[in-house]
Amino acid sequence: MEAHKQLTIGLFGFGVVGEGLYKVLQQTPSLRATIKKVCIKNPTKQRNAPAALFTTEKEELLSDESINVIVEVIDDANAAFEIVSIAMRNGKGVVSASKKMIAEHLPEILELQQETGLPFLYEAAACASIPVIRNLEEYYDNDLLHSIKAIVNGSTNFILTKMFEDKLSFQSALLLAQQLGFAESNPKLDVEGYDAVNKWAILLNHAYGIVEHPDNILFTGIQNIQLSDALVAREKSLDVKLIAQAKKLSNGQVAAFVLPQFVKHDEPLSFVKNEYNGVVIESGFADKQFFYGKGAGSFPTASAVLSDISALRYNYCYEYKKLYHHNPHELTTDYYLKVYVSFDDWKYIPREKFEWIEEWHADADRKYLVGVLHAGELLNDSWWKENGSSLILSPDPVIDNIDIINLKKRSLELAGVV
Amino acid sequence: MEAHKQLTIGLFGFGVVGEGLYKVLQQTPSLRATIKKVCIKNPTKQRNAPAALFTTEKEELLSDESINVIVEVIDDANAAFEIVSIAMRNGKGVVSASKKMIAEHLPEILELQQETGLPFLYEAAACASIPVIRNLEEYYDNDLLHSIKAIVNGSTNFILTKMFEDKLSFQSALLLAQQLGFAESNPKLDVEGYDAVNKWAILLNHAYGIVEHPDNILFTGIQNIQLSDALVAREKSLDVKLIAQAKKLSNGQVAAFVLPQFVKHDEPLSFVKNEYNGVVIESGFADKQFFYGKGAGSFPTASAVLSDISALRYNYCYEYKKLYHHNPHELTTDYYLKVYVSFDDWKYIPREKFEWIEEWHADADRKYLVGVLHAGELLNDSWWKENGSSLILSPDPVIDNIDIINLKKRSLELAGVV
Repeated sequence: MEAHKQLTIGLFGFGVVGEGLYKVLQQTPSLRATIKKVCIKNPTKQRNAPAALFTTEKEELLSDESINVIVEVIDDANAAFEIVSIAMRNGKGVVSASKKMIAEHLPEILELQQETGLPFLYEAAACASIPVIRNLEEYYDNDLLHSIKAIVNGSTNFILTKMFEDKLSFQSALLLAQQLGFAESNPKLDVEGYDAVNKWAILLNHAYGIVEHPDNILFTGIQNIQLSDALVAREKSLDVKLIAQAKKLSNGQVAAFVLPQFVKHDEPLSFVKNEYNGVVIESGFADKQFFYGKGAGSFPTASAVLSDISALRYNYCYEYKKLYHHNPHELTTDYYLKVYVSFDDWKYIPREKFEWIEEWHADADRKYLVGVLHAGELLNDSWWKENGSSLILSPDPVIDNIDIINLKKRSLELAGVV
Repeated sequence: MEAHKQLTIGLFGFGVVGEGLYKVLQQTPSLRATIKKVCIKNPTKQRNAPAALFTTEKEELLSDESINVIVEVIDDANAAFEIVSIAMRNGKGVVSASKKMIAEHLPEILELQQETGLPFLYEAAACASIPVIRNLEEYYDNDLLHSIKAIVNGSTNFILTKMFEDKLSFQSALLLAQQLGFAESNPKLDVEGYDAVNKWAILLNHAYGIVEHPDNILFTGIQNIQLSDALVAREKSLDVKLIAQAKKLSNGQVAAFVLPQFVKHDEPLSFVKNEYNGVVIESGFADKQFFYGKGAGSFPTASAVLSDISALRYNYCYEYKKLYHHNPHELTTDYYLKVYVSFDDWKYIPREKFEWIEEWHADADRKYLVGVLHAGELLNDSWWKENGSSLILSPDPVIDNIDIINLKKRSLELAGVV
């Protein structure tokens, strides 16, 4: 595409994001981008736009040579991937917001971009309004990225905020999130961490050049968090957040997971409440950088789509520098995690699997312990998310292999075992 | 420059930033950037690098054809501008951290870039480690940027934090900032707002395409803030911060200034403590975005320089899209500001210049009022920063001309005047 060209858009999906986008583009002629046709699934639904704009035939968009950009904001990952593939093979740039589709089809999507040389942008798929992909791609493109941790799912964060600050029950908080339009149509996707791990699979690529299917990433959601966990958090002056993180280990491999975690009040992620998202990047010499913005809802998502559309006018495309120009990093589960586990009965807890246990409270109805586990144990087993057990990471949870022996020794000394 | 090339750097300045940069580049061979020569002013000073690296002759760097990048981290704005001009005319890309030089010579610097087509990057000149220029340039490049407000000076923010939270006196807090290396060599540059307004002149260009000399921007520092102001802030549950801001008015013109301001505790900028910087960007549909990171100190500055060097390898340059590709916005002082002014005696306060006064406290030793003033009055007069008077903006201070009549009427009604 030549520079600063007029964009003629074919839009798939006219839900809250699609309709919002349509309105903004109409009100902002300076963007020089117009929607020529919108493909929808249900033709009988009432729409706030001229009827002539709509079609149910995707070919009308995908084969129209005057359309040079396809924007895809539909809910169905398989249909979305098909649309994207055809669009790019037909010579069109693509903007997408479908995190599940991108996370699950990353290798094919990389191939499509290499094959066609066309831009495929998807800032809206990670933290909605926060330009995290763009910053990882453009600004943190060197060997100095120590770690990245983030709240990437607005609806679980909203639920946790309402539970911990306003003392709502999990169910009322979830209902409120749905009423406000923050939650996925299937709440399981948010609550059990699927949405977060999809986003994390995407960001791992832009942060470290890692291409990994979300199924292979350690994760859970907030479905097991109990009221008693909230009480423990309050006692220790900590928040509980669902945090996605990746950390470079001393051998250069990367530890990555999405798990609930205790967060200190003075940490930037503790500032992230309700439907907001936040990303903390630790890089050599820069110390901590924190990006914060709305992570859910139609308008923040539409705004990210809009910025991608705008970038297409300048022929912007992701270079995937960490994957193609550097030695991409490898994901590993060979490291240790310091965890808090609360549970109803000791019989559900395989104590022998802990490297050591630092703290335990067994007197109350609800028991808990704080100990250290090998991360592979969590990926390969599920006792920690079954039978009402609830696992929450310690504030600084990752223990490198080179440190484990000394820490274990010190811990056993403290406990008076040796 | 061809893509992903090896960079051979000529470095001007070997202070904390320069030396830090030298070390990182040595430790990070994957950056493919090496320092060939360092130009210093004082040859007798002991340096932690081989003597052969140093010279006092700038021509040795500027005329060396094997050097393709000049990095300039010196303290002298005039010398820096000369170096940059010669370097670019000699076909070299430039990375600079000199905010004063860039702010004061912006028109010439823009011309140099257009003339030579060479990149001139200066992310380190705005908020040190926060990639704010890059994000304004690349991501918020449309008409939807409603406002930007920021804490851009780490040392005044450090001083305010120590005064308000640790009850240090202004002098002790300043001394501590200097000891920790956060303050400019001449503290007046930080404390009286010169450093902040220089940075703001730079950011106004990348945010709105405005090219304005810092002398024409309304600003002051924290030199007049009194202990009594801190007490008022605490009473009202507010913080006091030195905040740079720019806001698009209803007529499309931009209000911009750097002034102390009351900030609510739940606002992102209230989270910014000590030497950190923070930027809040309000854009259409995205709502508030917040960027946070270290804004002072040698390492954060070196890290921004490093990211610019890294970007040069990919031939990155600022496009100044808002200036060249859009209609650049105009700066105006035709709007109103809601201010708090504390003072020792009414005789110093020209009450007739206020549109209206909403609140006054005249019983104590130290008096204060809250009222509304035309912004032009502040730019053209100085009573508000003389005779021990202290001006602090209200939390949401900008009043658009189209709102002033109704607000004035309502305010007079409330006061029982009409």
